[in-house]
Amino acid sequence: MEHGVHSEVGRLRKVLVCAPGLAHRRLTPGNADDLLFDDVMWVENAQRDHADFVNKLRNRGVEVVELHELLAATMAIPEARTWLLDRKIIANEVGLGLLDDTRAFLEELAPRELAEFLIGGLATSDLPAEFRKSAYVSLAREATGVREYLMPPLPNTLYTRDTTCWLYGGLTLNPLYWPARHDETLLMKAIYEFHPDYVGSKIWWGDPEKDWGLATFEGGDVMPVGNGVVLVGMSERTSRQAITQVAQSLFANGAASKVIVAGMPKLRAAMHLDTVFTFADRDVVTLYPNIVDGIHPFTLVPGSWGVDVIDNEGQRFVDVVAESLGFKQLRVIETGGDVYASERQQWDSGNNAVAVEPGVVFTYDRNTQTNTLLRQAGVEVITIVGAELGRGRGGGHCMTCPLIRDAVDF
Amino acid sequence: MEHGVHSEVGRLRKVLVCAPGLAHRRLTPGNADDLLFDDVMWVENAQRDHADFVNKLRNRGVEVVELHELLAATMAIPEARTWLLDRKIIANEVGLGLLDDTRAFLEELAPRELAEFLIGGLATSDLPAEFRKSAYVSLAREATGVREYLMPPLPNTLYTRDTTCWLYGGLTLNPLYWPARHDETLLMKAIYEFHPDYVGSKIWWGDPEKDWGLATFEGGDVMPVGNGVVLVGMSERTSRQAITQVAQSLFANGAASKVIVAGMPKLRAAMHLDTVFTFADRDVVTLYPNIVDGIHPFTLVPGSWGVDVIDNEGQRFVDVVAESLGFKQLRVIETGGDVYASERQQWDSGNNAVAVEPGVVFTYDRNTQTNTLLRQAGVEVITIVGAELGRGRGGGHCMTCPLIRDAVDF
Amino acid sequence: MEHGVHSEVGRLRKVLVCAPGLAHRRLTPGNADDLLFDDVMWVENAQRDHADFVNKLRNRGVEVVELHELLAATMAIPEARTWLLDRKIIANEVGLGLLDDTRAFLEELAPRELAEFLIGGLATSDLPAEFRKSAYVSLAREATGVREYLMPPLPNTLYTRDTTCWLYGGLTLNPLYWPARHDETLLMKAIYEFHPDYVGSKIWWGDPEKDWGLATFEGGDVMPVGNGVVLVGMSERTSRQAITQVAQSLFANGAASKVIVAGMPKLRAAMHLDTVFTFADRDVVTLYPNIVDGIHPFTLVPGSWGVDVIDNEGQRFVDVVAESLGFKQLRVIETGGDVYASERQQWDSGNNAVAVEPGVVFTYDRNTQTNTLLRQAGVEVITIVGAELGRGRGGGHCMTCPLIRDAVDF
Amino acid sequence: MEHGVHSEVGRLRKVLVCAPGLAHRRLTPGNADDLLFDDVMWVENAQRDHADFVNKLRNRGVEVVELHELLAATMAIPEARTWLLDRKIIANEVGLGLLDDTRAFLEELAPRELAEFLIGGLATSDLPAEFRKSAYVSLAREATGVREYLMPPLPNTLYTRDTTCWLYGGLTLNPLYWPARHDETLLMKAIYEFHPDYVGSKIWWGDPEKDWGLATFEGGDVMPVGNGVVLVGMSERTSRQAITQVAQSLFANGAASKVIVAGMPKLRAAMHLDTVFTFADRDVVTLYPNIVDGIHPFTLVPGSWGVDVIDNEGQRFVDVVAESLGFKQLRVIETGGDVYASERQQWDSGNNAVAVEPGVVFTYDRNTQTNTLLRQAGVEVITIVGAELGRGRGGGHCMTCPLIRDAVDF
Repeated sequence: MEHGVHSEVGRLRKVLVCAPGLAHRRLTPGNADDLLFDDVMWVENAQRDHADFVNKLRNRGVEVVELHELLAATMAIPEARTWLLDRKIIANEVGLGLLDDTRAFLEELAPRELAEFLIGGLATSDLPAEFRKSAYVSLAREATGVREYLMPPLPNTLYTRDTTCWLYGGLTLNPLYWPARHDETLLMKAIYEFHPDYVGSKIWWGDPEKDWGLATFEGGDVMPVGNGVVLVGMSERTSRQAITQVAQSLFANGAASKVIVAGMPKLRAAMHLDTVFTFADRDVVTLYPNIVDGIHPFTLVPGSWGVDVIDNEGQRFVDVVAESLGFKQLRVIETGGDVYASERQQWDSGNNAVAVEPGVVFTYDRNTQTNTLLRQAGVEVITIVGAELGRGRGGGHCMTCPLIRDAVDF
Repeated sequence: MEHGVHSEVGRLRKVLVCAPGLAHRRLTPGNADDLLFDDVMWVENAQRDHADFVNKLRNRGVEVVELHELLAATMAIPEARTWLLDRKIIANEVGLGLLDDTRAFLEELAPRELAEFLIGGLATSDLPAEFRKSAYVSLAREATGVREYLMPPLPNTLYTRDTTCWLYGGLTLNPLYWPARHDETLLMKAIYEFHPDYVGSKIWWGDPEKDWGLATFEGGDVMPVGNGVVLVGMSERTSRQAITQVAQSLFANGAASKVIVAGMPKLRAAMHLDTVFTFADRDVVTLYPNIVDGIHPFTLVPGSWGVDVIDNEGQRFVDVVAESLGFKQLRVIETGGDVYASERQQWDSGNNAVAVEPGVVFTYDRNTQTNTLLRQAGVEVITIVGAELGRGRGGGHCMTCPLIRDAVDF
Repeated sequence: MEHGVHSEVGRLRKVLVCAPGLAHRRLTPGNADDLLFDDVMWVENAQRDHADFVNKLRNRGVEVVELHELLAATMAIPEARTWLLDRKIIANEVGLGLLDDTRAFLEELAPRELAEFLIGGLATSDLPAEFRKSAYVSLAREATGVREYLMPPLPNTLYTRDTTCWLYGGLTLNPLYWPARHDETLLMKAIYEFHPDYVGSKIWWGDPEKDWGLATFEGGDVMPVGNGVVLVGMSERTSRQAITQVAQSLFANGAASKVIVAGMPKLRAAMHLDTVFTFADRDVVTLYPNIVDGIHPFTLVPGSWGVDVIDNEGQRFVDVVAESLGFKQLRVIETGGDVYASERQQWDSGNNAVAVEPGVVFTYDRNTQTNTLLRQAGVEVITIVGAELGRGRGGGHCMTCPLIRDAVDF
Repeated sequence: MEHGVHSEVGRLRKVLVCAPGLAHRRLTPGNADDLLFDDVMWVENAQRDHADFVNKLRNRGVEVVELHELLAATMAIPEARTWLLDRKIIANEVGLGLLDDTRAFLEELAPRELAEFLIGGLATSDLPAEFRKSAYVSLAREATGVREYLMPPLPNTLYTRDTTCWLYGGLTLNPLYWPARHDETLLMKAIYEFHPDYVGSKIWWGDPEKDWGLATFEGGDVMPVGNGVVLVGMSERTSRQAITQVAQSLFANGAASKVIVAGMPKLRAAMHLDTVFTFADRDVVTLYPNIVDGIHPFTLVPGSWGVDVIDNEGQRFVDVVAESLGFKQLRVIETGGDVYASERQQWDSGNNAVAVEPGVVFTYDRNTQTNTLLRQAGVEVITIVGAELGRGRGGGHCMTCPLIRDAVDF
């Protein structure tokens, strides 16, 4: 079956996830901010809860691909290993002094071990003694605090949603906003360049080997809802510079006919669209009104410079979306509870649902009031334990990158 | 006379500065942080004080080149204008919608006007009505707050020291730490590629058109002190990844024989070396002991992979520097006053002196106690009014990029 | 002539100010935040600029009282000295170990010296050797960083406006929001209890010897505009708990007939009303529309529990004020310049004018565009040099506490 | 049996805890900082985990008193209810407008309901319609954001350790550092004044009805280790001003013969001693060396002004403690794991153990490596589920206030 994502709620057939691991063992109160995490986590329990999530997905008939395994399979291909190490073990990242030693150490590793370090990061203390004789080691240590990295840890790989987006029959390799996440996309490129299951995929836009400047794009802001429509949140992380380029490519390739841009309110600019708005069924969305009410919608359609911009100022975002899908209106399930509970549940990813088929979603267990409202609306809700996984401020939607998902009828 | 900087205190013959201007008129309390300024400034007074600084430099026989003028002269060269606009007016920066209109507007401008916008930034509201008909303008506005930029303002050009460094007979085109400053180096490359006075300069390292990853380098950390020695602060902004590459190039070209790395204390990692340590005479330095006492020195010399690292742990930085210049010890003038005044004067760039010849330095007027100590030590101190210029947390050393400076005898 | 303030723009006859001094010499980048200052200042220049402000006030016929001098005169009265030291040199502030030594040292001082330390703070290092023999000194030093205080410095005395408010014929002794400012009001109480010029003043509300809990009140939020009306900003610093009590007292004493509450927008809750809105003439105000447009006005009048609340939701604050003074509307002068300049000038206290008579105001020199607009409206503007004084984020209105001001006709 | 705490590890016979509840339902991402919480919590699960902790304590023979129940029992006493409401429902807290209505509503409540609101806070929306007719309600709402409080929520009651300290045969009623926690001590005073089990307890120091200025004292810094010794952390929250007064009282009453002060490093000044150092057995401590190695110890003994200070500079804190208890040295169990894990476990309260008898402690489950080290040292470790309870950054030691604990032999 061909890769491709044709809706937000059609049957999910294949999905990419990434288990917690070494990268999260690197998190400390001191470095969590730099690594974009709010808090440290109990890694063993996070792994247990993530494994349970994966099992439940499989029980629902979804083929689940795990990133460490996928990358290990890719690293078993000699040209892929060479390609990736040529791009990771360079003077600009490692510094000159340990370049050869680091490369030599990594070349010796089994594919799975190598994948662990590529995602989990490589500290000088991870090098066996014979590879760290250079006095450069003490320079490296002085440079970067308690522990020094030759490859930085990538804990945000947990949120596979952001790095690549399948939009109908092709994908984007996203330039992520924070430099700390840049290398996530490089790992994905290695997979799409070399792994036999992925080679030859159509790429609409993006390449981690190029500098994209202000054109940043993150999957948490992107939803191929079907009917030729793509929703994109214009946020701190996903910029007009990127959105217009992606729209141009989608239109030029005939992959989509309309891009609805959600101009996110400035107050919490960093927030992805999927942290406040996701689909639970063909015409059912769960959303956080405090933010969604402030969205300024625009519609992009094929036009003069490839794209024409229509300003939907004054219209409600949900109405613009409903109309694009042929509905009179969407059924809206707001974050549950009183003002305190509602704000708290949005924060705890209460609106970050991911569907496995129309009307069946995964959410965190802790957002009991929103989950109850979803159930009362007829949605089947399967829960994920969120005590640890939620500490990076992402839920089920963030932790999944659909690879194959059916269309739905509208 | 050939460009080249052969010491920190030899006769200064030619220097690059950048006057405050449009970029600083863009500063507000809301955006100052993003633009790396602590506070807004009264631009007219900052201009007056900067002009006075320039006049005093000229009175001392220094040829002063101003960046807006230098860039204007460069933009008068058609190929240079094309080269730079081809790199600035691109979809990744401007977004697709206004690409042609923006380019058309800029092509019409006189060289000086163009230079103003290149340094000062271009807001959509700066575009005349006939160039902003696209509905994309409202998308651009929504995207980025009160005012939206098609080219971002570059207020840190005020600190010409950081962007390029003449190290003896050649220079580096520095990859700066903060993305907000990246385009400063691109402007300098246009000058070194096209302006007849600068074409053909030897470039040791760096190119703003390449991605340097973690290899960042800023001139505030770099001092070619003479005797074949270069001091480099290893700070948040200047990394081991860059330092080792620059050292390798200097050694390979025979331009220097030793690089002394000042491993800055972690507590205030972002601080440049020249904010706590500068030279006032051949053997006289002014320094802030609270920080300098915590420096961990290393010495880089030509060696196995181009460079060998010697760990000087346990030695005092000033002693390592003294020895490299053939002195038994340096005469040290600490920041003046009691504990309060000393901390305050370091903050107000009290140790950020720039020499025009041995024993003659420029500093801010407000650091009266440190200035008195310098004078008591026989140093001639010429003052710059710092009330406005100091608000970006840089002094005379930061605001000057020496282009020609004589060697001194040791 | 009796103390009393009967308007915001009537002839100013007597005013209290406080010169910069020892307290500002204690400011460092490390402690400025705790002492509520944004930046350190060049104290000598701040003193020069403040002296110039005082001279200009005197040249306009205003009697200017300076706080150090007023406090020194008070401390020359033995009972006043005893009263104040009994309240300052206590175990809860000094700790037990140095209680007697500190008291003994202070008792020996001349009144002016004592006043300097009361405002400027007392560090253990200020104690002569014979008063600091106790090993407790090293405990004190360990406790509080580089320098330790036996009496804390009070740099915000510079803003005499906040501590006490003359409202028509009586005053309030304000409980200030930040604990770091609490003792300012205690100094003022000593003056009003013992200094012959102030003894017997009517006090509407407040006593620094009592705990006021959430009832905090700061003069920067308070304006006795005349016609029996008082404006009060309800901000982070001035609470409904205090406002209702002050209104009750004013109404019970027949001192005012109406209190207009400006419910400040939440985004910048800490801002005083006078940082965004002041009077320049009987019917002329200068204001910052970005904030003032968001004010939610309420009117308090005598009523059931002493006060009745009228919710003016939907009305503009300036209209409610105009109506209370019998005007059809106020003439409004907004902060000048484009969006950048306007935001910058508000920040630099551009709307913080203080009048000496109708149509004659003092403002900072740096807000040239707002000053021009005021002049174009026929207001005479006298400037204060703001480069140093403005660093605590207060202007002429904040630095003055009117003691005698005439009424105006409406 | 009489109340009294005679050691840190002797048999724990009676303890005060406080279950999570309404106060934690008030927590949101927006107000958590103000309420001193790092994150919001899933209250139902926190309650489940706390109940499990209580059950395990009871299974170990400890009598557990819960604060809501204790306060409800106290509020059933009419004079106690009057006393407390007279101090809570005042103009300074409620504002004048709703004073009578609020009092009337609270007077009607059953004791348990009243206790819920006293700890959980009272919002205007909690008032039934008949008690909120005043237009003052809309003023109150404007004043304080989304929801307004007539009594503030007290979520830090969860950490009963801080508010009162039994030190041998008497207790302190602590003035807490943050104003947001002040009323916690008032609730405790009501209990000690009126509840028959507590009336007549000896109070060494402290009274929430007085202003203690800089003399703040928190139980997390205080340990009555036995042998007449009390350890006190001198931190941001527990000051020399308070410590010297408590020492004076303990010495004057013959309750203790020595107070060892742990001068906490400045870098993380807010940290309580028990977040980095607790006892697991008579001579066994668990500690976080990164912080404890930086402690500057002092010893206070009876002396000239009631207290004499001995500066133990240069001595290790653990050695000073060991000597005071008659040990040659303490057995030290450091936070477990590599540098990342160790920093993470300290953060997750890994060193915050509470003993129920010598060698038997409660700790959070998540600090698996530190728990393993404790077990290897022969300590019995009983775990508490920490996923929710730990989000306020306190563990078993913080959540327990011992009321009766036996002495141990040394």
